[in-house]
Amino acid sequence: MTHLYRVRVYFEDTDAAGVVYHANYLGLAERARTEALRDLGVPHAELLRDHGLIFMVRRAKLDYLAPARLDESLLVTTRTLALGAASVDLRQSFAAETVPERSLVVAEIRLACVRVADMRPGRIPPRWRAVLAGGALG
Amino acid sequence: MTHLYRVRVYFEDTDAAGVVYHANYLGLAERARTEALRDLGVPHAELLRDHGLIFMVRRAKLDYLAPARLDESLLVTTRTLALGAASVDLRQSFAAETVPERSLVVAEIRLACVRVADMRPGRIPPRWRAVLAGGALG
Amino acid sequence: MTHLYRVRVYFEDTDAAGVVYHANYLGLAERARTEALRDLGVPHAELLRDHGLIFMVRRAKLDYLAPARLDESLLVTTRTLALGAASVDLRQSFAAETVPERSLVVAEIRLACVRVADMRPGRIPPRWRAVLAGGALG
Amino acid sequence: MTHLYRVRVYFEDTDAAGVVYHANYLGLAERARTEALRDLGVPHAELLRDHGLIFMVRRAKLDYLAPARLDESLLVTTRTLALGAASVDLRQSFAAETVPERSLVVAEIRLACVRVADMRPGRIPPRWRAVLAGGALG
Repeated sequence: MTHLYRVRVYFEDTDAAGVVYHANYLGLAERARTEALRDLGVPHAELLRDHGLIFMVRRAKLDYLAPARLDESLLVTTRTLALGAASVDLRQSFAAETVPERSLVVAEIRLACVRVADMRPGRIPPRWRAVLAGGALG
Repeated sequence: MTHLYRVRVYFEDTDAAGVVYHANYLGLAERARTEALRDLGVPHAELLRDHGLIFMVRRAKLDYLAPARLDESLLVTTRTLALGAASVDLRQSFAAETVPERSLVVAEIRLACVRVADMRPGRIPPRWRAVLAGGALG
Repeated sequence: MTHLYRVRVYFEDTDAAGVVYHANYLGLAERARTEALRDLGVPHAELLRDHGLIFMVRRAKLDYLAPARLDESLLVTTRTLALGAASVDLRQSFAAETVPERSLVVAEIRLACVRVADMRPGRIPPRWRAVLAGGALG
Repeated sequence: MTHLYRVRVYFEDTDAAGVVYHANYLGLAERARTEALRDLGVPHAELLRDHGLIFMVRRAKLDYLAPARLDESLLVTTRTLALGAASVDLRQSFAAETVPERSLVVAEIRLACVRVADMRPGRIPPRWRAVLAGGALG
């Protein structure tokens, strides 16, 4: 009921404080979400091709609890928190693979489903709803 | 009572959706905060050199209201929301320079003041407190 | 006869080795080129709007001679090396503002002028040629 | 005799031109090199821990032949070109997984082996030499 994604920390992810730069978790979270949708059979490329819709980040909230460091392998856990007609709230937590029970960073991301044609809200199609609601993502 | 920072949007800031990539606002916000402290006479380099302290991002909350696009000049407004012994909450809003009254993105950032030696919380020194509290930053 | 651009190094530009991450010089060089064209009255937005053309990086060569560090102010010097019908070679060198005669990084960038409609080479329009050839950029 | 690394293109890798931003290939190349050394049993973390040495990028040359796009899966091929006492030249080429024989970008990267203590050149230790020379990396 939980999607797991593994990602390694490289020099490009770090900053001069020796840890993962705080902004970069948002990029890592996007990779994890993209692979979650792909793994669960509802890739975002099909959402665009078949429905003219995309998910856009509308809100992000990040709590930085402890730093991640170069060469660490991180587990990103993606879960559905709430599902609306045209939006979905996800929780994505980051932990070191060696200590998976301790979150380093917790992100809550609200995605809006929007029509690319006019950037107006669009209803999430049934295939995506089923996956997001069924906890397949979460 | 408000610090203003101007930043241009380049290709590196954008993504294939044609707008500023959502994660990149955190980097732009860091630039704005850094210049705010420098402009107000309390650069973070002196915080480290004289006190062994750094500001670390502990929490970030971003609301994406409207997209920013290539070549736009953005105004970043940085204000103090709340000041604790070892932390400060800032609001940083982004607007197009041509429509400064309409925020595109609003970020609330909690910075913790920590000792680099052991990464434990450290009290914000008086010089920095005065600037942050006096609204000089906000 | 030389365009100068000043840029500050922030945490986002650095990596865990404590220096500017090598890939990031390409982004900084793009900012410097964009401002060079703007300062000289031939912004790339007009190249697109009036001619349907864009400059794309076709080749890049970077020599990393010495590292740049957090908070340093860098001078980026942009010069024209060679000008073809549909391409231009630039040299862009980075130096600390305090030691401008010592290059930290030297980049040679070949830009191709291409039509956005079909991504085929397009002749550089006279206004841009004059600036690039006249050494206004270099 | 060739190390292959697979990497997906996400929004964070692209720019407003709809393609992978040119600077980002250097970051992707770093990931591929890091995994190459790890896969071949000589991770860079051990180079640092056992010998106090790191590989730093001294020179990079990139030819951009064709663009890569969102969602594409790229193959990064890493080969040794030349091996010196304290440096190694690699060729890293990027191709779409679906058309692996056609390079989109070709990078030549010179890595210097340097002592972290003083940033002076250091001889590449035998274990790393064997892998780099033996073509295990290339």
